[in-house]
Amino acid sequence: MNRILFEPDERNAEGLVLLTGARAAHVRDVLRAEVGAELKVGEIDGLTGVGRVGALTADTVLLTVTLDAPSPEPWVDLLLALPRPKALKRLCPQLAALGVGQLVLLNASRVERVYFDTHWLQEEHMRPLLVEGLMQAGTTHLPRVLVRRRFRWFLEDELDSRFPTPWRLMAHPGPVTRVPARPAAAGARPLLAVGPEGGWTPHEYDLLTARGFQPFSLGPRILRTDTACVALLAVLGHACA
Amino acid sequence: MNRILFEPDERNAEGLVLLTGARAAHVRDVLRAEVGAELKVGEIDGLTGVGRVGALTADTVLLTVTLDAPSPEPWVDLLLALPRPKALKRLCPQLAALGVGQLVLLNASRVERVYFDTHWLQEEHMRPLLVEGLMQAGTTHLPRVLVRRRFRWFLEDELDSRFPTPWRLMAHPGPVTRVPARPAAAGARPLLAVGPEGGWTPHEYDLLTARGFQPFSLGPRILRTDTACVALLAVLGHACA
Repeated sequence: MNRILFEPDERNAEGLVLLTGARAAHVRDVLRAEVGAELKVGEIDGLTGVGRVGALTADTVLLTVTLDAPSPEPWVDLLLALPRPKALKRLCPQLAALGVGQLVLLNASRVERVYFDTHWLQEEHMRPLLVEGLMQAGTTHLPRVLVRRRFRWFLEDELDSRFPTPWRLMAHPGPVTRVPARPAAAGARPLLAVGPEGGWTPHEYDLLTARGFQPFSLGPRILRTDTACVALLAVLGHACA
Repeated sequence: MNRILFEPDERNAEGLVLLTGARAAHVRDVLRAEVGAELKVGEIDGLTGVGRVGALTADTVLLTVTLDAPSPEPWVDLLLALPRPKALKRLCPQLAALGVGQLVLLNASRVERVYFDTHWLQEEHMRPLLVEGLMQAGTTHLPRVLVRRRFRWFLEDELDSRFPTPWRLMAHPGPVTRVPARPAAAGARPLLAVGPEGGWTPHEYDLLTARGFQPFSLGPRILRTDTACVALLAVLGHACA
């Protein structure tokens, strides 16, 4: 935790936040903060600032917070073929840390149907994974997560209204290629599509290219979904910077 | 497993390889291969090729292998401040998959001494993690792992002879910067230094810059060591390609 985050309704009108549970334990046992210490804090989807430790008990930490600085904004949206639950759990904090704005978890031919049964897709389980990633990165903007079970329906009926950007890219195996450049008209952030471990089917590939997704590749090594997502986002982020 | 790997001494003079354990189970239960099926195989630190299933039992798979194609070569070496054991375990397969040639696990001021006690540093535990990464990536070259407990000694007495390349880079927090270009004289692969979660100390930073390591940054987000390594290697790899 490089920044302690709290929900907007955890802060009262006097700017006090009472931490309990894992966050309180972290402040006491890892940061070894004492009364008067100043910690980096942030409000989820809000500003960052400083929290001054006002009191400590065995289970709680009382902070007086001052919020004054914006958090870095998300810079990319991700269409991701739903990975296996273990990979999803591993990936979510990293996607939040890397600055993903909207995350669409999508079905595809090579996605196993049972993956959609995982409890990690439930808000109550997913949200702590994402917040963990934000607290690591020191940012506050929580990714918005959508789950879509119909690939074609999503592409044809929802994609353009939700993601009007013409800057659409997709990861696709093959010889290494440059990241396609930002189209002149694109002011918004890029939308990256990442397929399942076995890749998109030729039919899915055709549907994606018809929607303007330009393929690019990091080279011949076949990466695990979570490694591939981190690698692709890093390369794309660096190309955008 | 996108390629089944075996040790050189597992292949006999007739080109037969007898798989047992996890690899045999993978061939039977995941690939659902039958007699006559052709699988992607490779010899550790050797060639890749095809293995034809000659026989299957409940516990074993007999392959007749033909090796004829070189594996992609490692393209980068990594100096890594030893991460916590859990992160090390998570990272090793990914480093092998991404094409790291030599991996130096190094002490630093902000590395906790107990990290060096982990069993993951023992050859018998480390090697399967690395082989797992190679089998994922489809490559055969096993990273060489060195453990060095004395940061300064390593930099002053071993670095230059082991890594004569002038193309030395280090990850360092700060505003995002371009990857430093390959020096004109550098034919060899780059050497990347990645610090502990808390960063290099100013003294360590000075010692590294004195040895020609050029700092670069992926931006303001603080990434977990394993996420950061994957992100840095991906960006560097793409800049090299």
